[in-house]
Amino acid sequence: MYDLLKGLRVVEGSAFVAGPTCGLYLAQMGAEVIRFDSIGGGPDFRRWPLAENGSSLYWEGLNKGKKSIALNLSSPAGREIAQRLAAAPGDDGGLFVTNFPAEGFLSYEALKKLRDDLICVRVMGWADGSQGMDYTINSALGLPLMTGPADDARPVNHVLAAWDLLTGAYCAFTLVSALLARTRGQGGREIRAPLSDIGAATMANLGFTAETLLSGRQRARMGNDIFGAFGRDFTTKDGQTLMLLAITPKQWSKALEALGIVAEAAALEAELGVSFAADEGLRFTHRARLYPLFERAFAQRTAADLAPAFDAGGVTWGAYQPLEAALDDPRLYKDNPVFEAIAHPSGLTYAAPGAMATIPQDPRGDVRPAPKLGQHTDEVLAQVLGMSGGEIARLHDDGTVA
Amino acid sequence: MYDLLKGLRVVEGSAFVAGPTCGLYLAQMGAEVIRFDSIGGGPDFRRWPLAENGSSLYWEGLNKGKKSIALNLSSPAGREIAQRLAAAPGDDGGLFVTNFPAEGFLSYEALKKLRDDLICVRVMGWADGSQGMDYTINSALGLPLMTGPADDARPVNHVLAAWDLLTGAYCAFTLVSALLARTRGQGGREIRAPLSDIGAATMANLGFTAETLLSGRQRARMGNDIFGAFGRDFTTKDGQTLMLLAITPKQWSKALEALGIVAEAAALEAELGVSFAADEGLRFTHRARLYPLFERAFAQRTAADLAPAFDAGGVTWGAYQPLEAALDDPRLYKDNPVFEAIAHPSGLTYAAPGAMATIPQDPRGDVRPAPKLGQHTDEVLAQVLGMSGGEIARLHDDGTVA
Repeated sequence: MYDLLKGLRVVEGSAFVAGPTCGLYLAQMGAEVIRFDSIGGGPDFRRWPLAENGSSLYWEGLNKGKKSIALNLSSPAGREIAQRLAAAPGDDGGLFVTNFPAEGFLSYEALKKLRDDLICVRVMGWADGSQGMDYTINSALGLPLMTGPADDARPVNHVLAAWDLLTGAYCAFTLVSALLARTRGQGGREIRAPLSDIGAATMANLGFTAETLLSGRQRARMGNDIFGAFGRDFTTKDGQTLMLLAITPKQWSKALEALGIVAEAAALEAELGVSFAADEGLRFTHRARLYPLFERAFAQRTAADLAPAFDAGGVTWGAYQPLEAALDDPRLYKDNPVFEAIAHPSGLTYAAPGAMATIPQDPRGDVRPAPKLGQHTDEVLAQVLGMSGGEIARLHDDGTVA
Repeated sequence: MYDLLKGLRVVEGSAFVAGPTCGLYLAQMGAEVIRFDSIGGGPDFRRWPLAENGSSLYWEGLNKGKKSIALNLSSPAGREIAQRLAAAPGDDGGLFVTNFPAEGFLSYEALKKLRDDLICVRVMGWADGSQGMDYTINSALGLPLMTGPADDARPVNHVLAAWDLLTGAYCAFTLVSALLARTRGQGGREIRAPLSDIGAATMANLGFTAETLLSGRQRARMGNDIFGAFGRDFTTKDGQTLMLLAITPKQWSKALEALGIVAEAAALEAELGVSFAADEGLRFTHRARLYPLFERAFAQRTAADLAPAFDAGGVTWGAYQPLEAALDDPRLYKDNPVFEAIAHPSGLTYAAPGAMATIPQDPRGDVRPAPKLGQHTDEVLAQVLGMSGGEIARLHDDGTVA
C-alpha cells in the first residue's frame, strides 16, 4: 500500500471484476475503501475458484485491503444506510463506485439529494442499462471470431476478462480525476462506464474499426501471427514453444543475429526487392516466406540453448509456460517484491500483491488481506455515519446489518 | 472531450499502446497532452493497419486530441528539449508519461534535476528493465495455454493486447493520483508500471494464482465454458452462435424460462440432489449433464426467435458477430453518441470515439483528431519552453526539430 490517496474515503457497492478492481486499486494507493454487500454476500461471494472450505479465492483476491459492511439491501432501512454511505461526508468522501442499476435506490438523482457534490462512478454492461457482461460484450465486438488458429472456425472467448479489467482501471482514473475537479470547484458528477462503450471505443482506438470500414470486413483470423509485423510462436528442437516478436528495426536485427539467419534474410530481401528492416509491414506481407527460415533455426536448437542467446542478444521473446511454472519464475512471482505472503480470510496463507506499480522512492507498505464479510460493520456505522452503540445494536437485532 | 482535467499539461514520450492510451485518456478528460516523437516518427508511426496512402490508422486512433512535436532524439540538443518538456513548468505541469528506459537521458534522476517535484509514470516491459511486450509477458503467465478448445493443445494468443490496455488505464489512474498527492504537498515521484507486474498481480487478484497453488497446476483448458458457473456458446436452429451466461440465480432462472427448460432442469436437480439456482458452481460441476438440455433448446429455435425472447426475459446473452456487423449495431457504433465522424490525418473521415465514459450532466464536447506529426512543434517550443521565433528557426535549421 502506498499513500498517494491517503485520506480518501471511497464507498464501493459492486460485484464481480470491474467495480471491485476499481476499489482495489484505490485501496492499494492509500484510500479507505468500504465495500457494502448483502448479508450473506453479494452475487460474487461464492465465485470460483474456491478454497477447500468453500471460501472464494476470487473474492478474497479482489477485495484486499477494503473494509466490509453487510446490509440487508432488500429492506428500506438497509437501503437507506447504503445511500448514506455512498454520500458519506467529508471533503474526501462522497466517492461512490458501483455497478448497481442507474435507476433505482442508488440512482445518482437519489444520492444527490443526500450530497449535492457526490461523485459516482457507475460500471454498466450495455450503455442503455441492459444486461451485459464481459463475455457477451466481447462476442458482439468480433474478437472471438478473430482469435485462434486459422484452420478452426469456432469462436474463441478470452479467458482473461479484459473488458472488465480495463473498465475497472479506467473507473479508478475517472474517480480520481473527478475528485481533482471537485477539489478545484467543479462540483460532483456521475460518470457512467459501460463495458459496451469501453469495448467499442477501444476497438476504434486501436484501429480495428477503421480497418474494417476500409476493407469491409474484420481482420482475418491468423493464429498467433502478430498483425502487421513479425511475430509468432516457434517450436525448438526439444519441442518447447517460444514466442518471438520483432516490431522495431532493432528487434528485427537482433532476432536475425541471435538465430544466425542474417544472410538468409538478406538473400530473401534481395530476391523480393524489399527491406524487412525498414518496414515491419513487409515482414508480415511476406511472412509465409520468412517463417521457414525461423522454423529451421528454432528446430536446430534447444530452448536451453536459445534462451541465453536471446537474452544476451536483447531479443524480444518469451517461453510459453503454464502458471505453475510462472509461480516459480523469479521475475513474476517467486522473488517479486510486489508480492507478500499473508493470511487470507479463507484461512490460507499465500503470496498476494499490493499495488501493481512500484514507486522506487516510497516504502511499499504491507499487503493487506481482504476483510471477512461484515468485519467492519460496527466500525463503519460508528465512524462514517456517527451512530451510537445503541443504534447499531438495534440494527443488528432487526436484521438490517450483520 | 470532458473538462475534468482542464489545465493539466502532460508530456508523453512513448509508443505502441500502453503509454499512448494513458495519454489519450488524459486528453479526452481535458488535459493538454503533448506527445514528442523522433523526426519522421517513432517506432509505432507506421504500425498497421494502414490507410491506402500509408498512414497508420493505429497511430491516428491512439493519439487523438494530442499535440505533436518532432525532435531529433539522437542529438544532445533534441534530448535536452525532451527533458525540458518532461519537466515543463506550472502547478499542473511536470507530468510525464513515457516508456523510455528507466536509465538514460529520460531517467527520473536526470529529470528531477530540472524539476524536483516531477511526476513521471513509466511503462516498462519486465520490471528489471529487460525487453518485454504484451505477447511475450502473456505467454509467460500461462493464459495462451488455457485459451481455446479443449481438443486442441496449441497455445492461443489473445488478439486484444489486454495487458497493454490495462497498463495504460492504470497509468492514467496513478498519474492523476500522484498529482492529487502533489497538490496536497507530497512532492513528486516516479511510478513504474511494468507489464510483468501488472500481469502477475492481476492473475493473483482474480484468484488464478491461489487456485494453481492449491491444485498444483493451472486451470484446465475448456473452450468457451465459463469457469465456475454456467456459460458457453450454443448453436441455434439456423446455425447462429450465441453466448449465454448465468452466474447469478436470477440470470439462471431467466435463462431456463426463456428457453422453456425449467422442468428439465428441475428433473436433473432432483436426480442429482442439488440446487443449481443456489450454487452456480454446481452448474459448472454438472455442466456435461446440463449442456444437452440447452443444446436441444437452442437447436429448436432460430436466432431471430431467441433474440427477442431473451431480451424480453432479461437473459444475459450475446450473438457472436464480426466487427463489420458490430459497426451496424446501434448499441455499439451506429447510433452511439460516444462516436463522432471526424477528419483524420490519413485524409479519411470516419467515426471516432471521445472519452470512453459518459457524464450525463456534462456536454461531451467535440471528438478531436490526432495531430499530424510535428504539427505543434513551434507552438509547443514557444508556449511551453518560452522560445523566441529566432531560437525556433535555428532549431529547425540545424535539424533539432521538425
